[in-house]
Amino acid sequence: MTLSLVGGAFANDDLQTLSSDAKNWAMQTGDYANTRYSKLKKITKDNVKNLQVAWTFSTGVLRGHEGGPLVVGDVMYVHAPYPNTVYALDLNNDGRILWRYEPRQDPNVIPIMCCDTVNRGVAYGDGKIFLYQADTTLVALDAKTGAVAWSVKNGEAADGSKGESGTSAPVVIKDKVLVGVSGGEFGVRGHLTAYNIKDGKQAWRAYSMGSDKETLIDPQKTTALGKPVGPDSGTNTWEGDQWKIGGGTTWGWYSYDPKLNLIYYGTGNPSTWNPNQRPGDNKWSMTIMARDADTGMAKWLYQMTPHDEWDYDGVNEMILADGIKIDGKDRDVLVHFDRNGFAYTMDRATGELLVAKKYDPAVNWATEVDMDKSSKTYGRPKVVDKYSTQAQGEDTNTTGICPAALGTKDQQPAAYSPKTKLFYVPTNHVCMDYEPYKVSYTAGQPYVGATVSMYPAPNSHGGMGNFIAWDAAKGEIVWSIPEQFSVWSGALATDGDVVFYGTLEGYLKAVDKNGKELYKFKTPSGIIGNVTTYEHKGKQYVAVLSGVGGWAGIGLAAGLLEAKNAAAWHGAVDQGRAQGDETKSVGTAGLGAVGGYAGLADYTTLGGQLTVFTVPE
Amino acid sequence: MTLSLVGGAFANDDLQTLSSDAKNWAMQTGDYANTRYSKLKKITKDNVKNLQVAWTFSTGVLRGHEGGPLVVGDVMYVHAPYPNTVYALDLNNDGRILWRYEPRQDPNVIPIMCCDTVNRGVAYGDGKIFLYQADTTLVALDAKTGAVAWSVKNGEAADGSKGESGTSAPVVIKDKVLVGVSGGEFGVRGHLTAYNIKDGKQAWRAYSMGSDKETLIDPQKTTALGKPVGPDSGTNTWEGDQWKIGGGTTWGWYSYDPKLNLIYYGTGNPSTWNPNQRPGDNKWSMTIMARDADTGMAKWLYQMTPHDEWDYDGVNEMILADGIKIDGKDRDVLVHFDRNGFAYTMDRATGELLVAKKYDPAVNWATEVDMDKSSKTYGRPKVVDKYSTQAQGEDTNTTGICPAALGTKDQQPAAYSPKTKLFYVPTNHVCMDYEPYKVSYTAGQPYVGATVSMYPAPNSHGGMGNFIAWDAAKGEIVWSIPEQFSVWSGALATDGDVVFYGTLEGYLKAVDKNGKELYKFKTPSGIIGNVTTYEHKGKQYVAVLSGVGGWAGIGLAAGLLEAKNAAAWHGAVDQGRAQGDETKSVGTAGLGAVGGYAGLADYTTLGGQLTVFTVPE
Ligand SMILES: O=C(O)c1cc(C(=O)O)c2c(n1)C(=O)C(=O)c1cc(C(=O)O)[nH]c1-2
Ligand SMILES: O=C(O)c1cc(C(=O)O)c2c(n1)C(=O)C(=O)c1cc(C(=O)O)[nH]c1-2
Repeated sequence: MTLSLVGGAFANDDLQTLSSDAKNWAMQTGDYANTRYSKLKKITKDNVKNLQVAWTFSTGVLRGHEGGPLVVGDVMYVHAPYPNTVYALDLNNDGRILWRYEPRQDPNVIPIMCCDTVNRGVAYGDGKIFLYQADTTLVALDAKTGAVAWSVKNGEAADGSKGESGTSAPVVIKDKVLVGVSGGEFGVRGHLTAYNIKDGKQAWRAYSMGSDKETLIDPQKTTALGKPVGPDSGTNTWEGDQWKIGGGTTWGWYSYDPKLNLIYYGTGNPSTWNPNQRPGDNKWSMTIMARDADTGMAKWLYQMTPHDEWDYDGVNEMILADGIKIDGKDRDVLVHFDRNGFAYTMDRATGELLVAKKYDPAVNWATEVDMDKSSKTYGRPKVVDKYSTQAQGEDTNTTGICPAALGTKDQQPAAYSPKTKLFYVPTNHVCMDYEPYKVSYTAGQPYVGATVSMYPAPNSHGGMGNFIAWDAAKGEIVWSIPEQFSVWSGALATDGDVVFYGTLEGYLKAVDKNGKELYKFKTPSGIIGNVTTYEHKGKQYVAVLSGVGGWAGIGLAAGLLEAKNAAAWHGAVDQGRAQGDETKSVGTAGLGAVGGYAGLADYTTLGGQLTVFTVPE
Repeated sequence: MTLSLVGGAFANDDLQTLSSDAKNWAMQTGDYANTRYSKLKKITKDNVKNLQVAWTFSTGVLRGHEGGPLVVGDVMYVHAPYPNTVYALDLNNDGRILWRYEPRQDPNVIPIMCCDTVNRGVAYGDGKIFLYQADTTLVALDAKTGAVAWSVKNGEAADGSKGESGTSAPVVIKDKVLVGVSGGEFGVRGHLTAYNIKDGKQAWRAYSMGSDKETLIDPQKTTALGKPVGPDSGTNTWEGDQWKIGGGTTWGWYSYDPKLNLIYYGTGNPSTWNPNQRPGDNKWSMTIMARDADTGMAKWLYQMTPHDEWDYDGVNEMILADGIKIDGKDRDVLVHFDRNGFAYTMDRATGELLVAKKYDPAVNWATEVDMDKSSKTYGRPKVVDKYSTQAQGEDTNTTGICPAALGTKDQQPAAYSPKTKLFYVPTNHVCMDYEPYKVSYTAGQPYVGATVSMYPAPNSHGGMGNFIAWDAAKGEIVWSIPEQFSVWSGALATDGDVVFYGTLEGYLKAVDKNGKELYKFKTPSGIIGNVTTYEHKGKQYVAVLSGVGGWAGIGLAAGLLEAKNAAAWHGAVDQGRAQGDETKSVGTAGLGAVGGYAGLADYTTLGGQLTVFTVPE
């Protein structure tokens, strides 16, 4: 690792050291490479069957609990969804509460959060805990005391009147802390912003759309599939000013390659969901971005789903893996499991596309990604007319599209084991009907423009998810475990040859490298949190947050299984479009997720608890 | 057991059978005798150290979780505080939700619940689950489907405008289901009411105060300390009509002796808390009542705290124990650990007072109970002037009174082991300052009239509680475990020679018959639920609800640790009386409990989870 700047007392000196010590879990993603792999191996494939609950902690908040606890030394930091309470727990003292931070936020932020009041966790760096609140306030807290060091509003409008919200986990990179923004269903124009960790001063901001200056794109030096992108690439694939309300939000995960000094992240869907209202490729929505960590300047870009017609946000994590053998050559790659159902393996220095394959055989909206470098459509998906909501047209219900809007995978992060060279991927096995319709834009109001319903992939195992192992060199599924519901929890792989994940029913599961189930335990509520591990006083622990919710669990979390509430949801979102009878409107509430996941109510209910496991001596 | 009526197809045929099978936990109290003792012995003093969490369940509700799950055959019934959701869980299928019942209640009931939005659990009988809602609706649900069989409003005013609320667990006795009422801090006149289990028709109602007809007292046949009570005993120790708003609510536990066909329960504080406003003994507040189960007619009565000056509600459970040797004779007794700090042993057929001794040495408001049968004050406590808020007078802050208003024990039930002949008692070790002041009555508004602050018993172990073993024959503490906070959870004793209880920090603890700690585990939130046990598929389980709250936890549960909320609480309750500076007013909020238990915030936060434990094979 080369730290190029003079004086080098950057937070990530500290953070890199901390996170390279496997005893800690100092970043939400485990490491900058987002591998969610731990070198700990006291819990092994042989003893994991003896896993026991060591202790538990209630967050005092209900609804969807994403992300997970951080462990830095003897202290664990636990966060909660809105109102985003943060706790520092003393691991030396049975989890006694060292401090708690309870932000005061305007509850009006709740209805502008598309997919539950989630928060993907806090970040540690420079002796501070960084919390990105629902209302887009980024707060730096003294990690020892919980006192506010500084606080800054990331969203443009102080009153959230543009529909901006915050759900993503900040990441500390060198002397900066980075945050994205949510609101693709409100016409928010996405951006990634870097603040100085010392004082919260804005260092740079990179919009997903806009002028080259705003997007921090160099028309000559920034490349896409090896070629310079040219001038105005952030506006010239849009009609008129639509890009100003064009989405491309940035609410996923962020990776960092210290050697290349590049950060990687993806941008979300273009707004609206009605493709007819926004002709063109809609760049740079749905795009993997590689940017310089110091300046934010774009090094390379790759748009996975030009002119999105299905809400296949491109925000899922980029996992950085080294020495993946492709065509006989060891490559340092970035692997990305996109919502659109394709898993991409790319050279992470250059953005060269190496592999793009379906990671669920159900995927049908495109036959393949054009891999012919000489083709005019190189790197683009070959869209199937039958499943093109653009081709089928406005006010037509296009049916049987796979995957559904929430993708073959949503935000729930995969894990990568450098030992097995396999990726362990929590997936959705869900298809949809999608009917786009015309909507008009009002700042701060829903700007959706499609009626969606979701259901398990037909002619398959009947369930709505799989947990799979993926070979990113070959672009092949190695094994696949059918699950009744989508696997909405982040995976963890360990040197003990165990892979962990949680299920929406609430099980923590452990499997071996062949996908054989070794252990399962029913936690208090559905799991959409990410499994983490740490060591304390010589013992390895596994920790996970329960609390059903997120988009998949929005029916339970927001009470949308009740006809009255579903009707209110439609009233707020549909701009007056008729949604048929009440029964049907329950199914299509929550952007289409309520119906598909209604069965979850038989298995779990709202919660908000941390469960910590260990193997007894 | 003799069932005297013809046709005998009473629910309790069924219920008696069910609860005599130790595999079930078919009543909140374990059995009619309220022993909370289980004959199960697969979990023993030797193997309890290996106890593990088997599975968990979130109720989807926060705030104080009292009572516990029922287990009848393969189904577990779990309830929650307001809004009083009830779940039927399939024990054969990993706790899958068979049905859920979510009542719709007017949230205006929340502010009229004095001591958190608690509910002490559902009752089973006649194939039905009986839920007593916060708004005093008693609902009978089909135990198989959750469908409403019938529902009746127990409180007088349909809109709750008199301040009536429901927190207690109903109990099924023969062909009736019995419920009490809460609202002693609102001038509610207490009553116990029996409804026919078949159709919800009211069978009888016994008021705590009122005419002999309303109180179901026979002036000749009903006795107190062996003598007929005489006419109008329910009004003639009150001035004017004060008895109409005189409290004596009935929100505790109910016991039943099938042989005697008598039910036992206690009545709460007289209203207001300002004793100067209600001269006289204020009968039958603060009274143990023995009533005929069929007719409700009172057999005998015993008032423990005539003319209460400290809010020492007499509602704590009556534990029925057989063959307790007193003065060389085996007696079938009733043992009652009163809020006032005395533990009473009485002949349960006649109401003869056998033993009355302090079960916490800190108790100072009275020196003793007069046991001289020839004395004019026989059976009455000898009140110490210094701690008499009546003697010290209105607007005087009487300090150093022990116990505090929440008593040496509150509603948290003790357990009795017929094997050791000892009682295992969760206690409070808390004292108070108490300043009574004049208040006026408005229907449905707080009618309190005292400012209280609480603190650990001085010159002691510094903590606010003890878990003790009690010899009810001798009236002696056998051993005492000091606890940092009050033990607000119900105990469980088992034939495996283990005694269980929970703590406000959230620990489930197991001790042996000598009080030696054998096991502890930190559950997600503070425990104010009651520990239960059951057997399923050959395995013994121990189950307990977490969810901090109740009166002791009201600061956390209702957010009263925040100055703003504490001030609002005072604004609603104090009738304009000045409460000094804001800091002080936080301490005296929540009827005085907030300050004393403020330290709880360092240990736990709101929750609502069931944790089920077992010992692996
Ligand atoms: O467009 C956006 O700004 C935006 C934001 C979020 C979010 O912040 O949670 C989600 C999505 N989109 C989205 O498309 C999506 O599938 C989704 C799932 C979840 C979740 O936490 O389960 N959030 C979001
Ligand atoms: O006078 C009443 O009607 C009444 C009701 C209740 C209740 O219903 O919870 C309590 C009390 N009083 C009370 O005095 C008291 O100490 C108390 C503690 C609790 C609890 O659940 O922790 N409830 C109540």
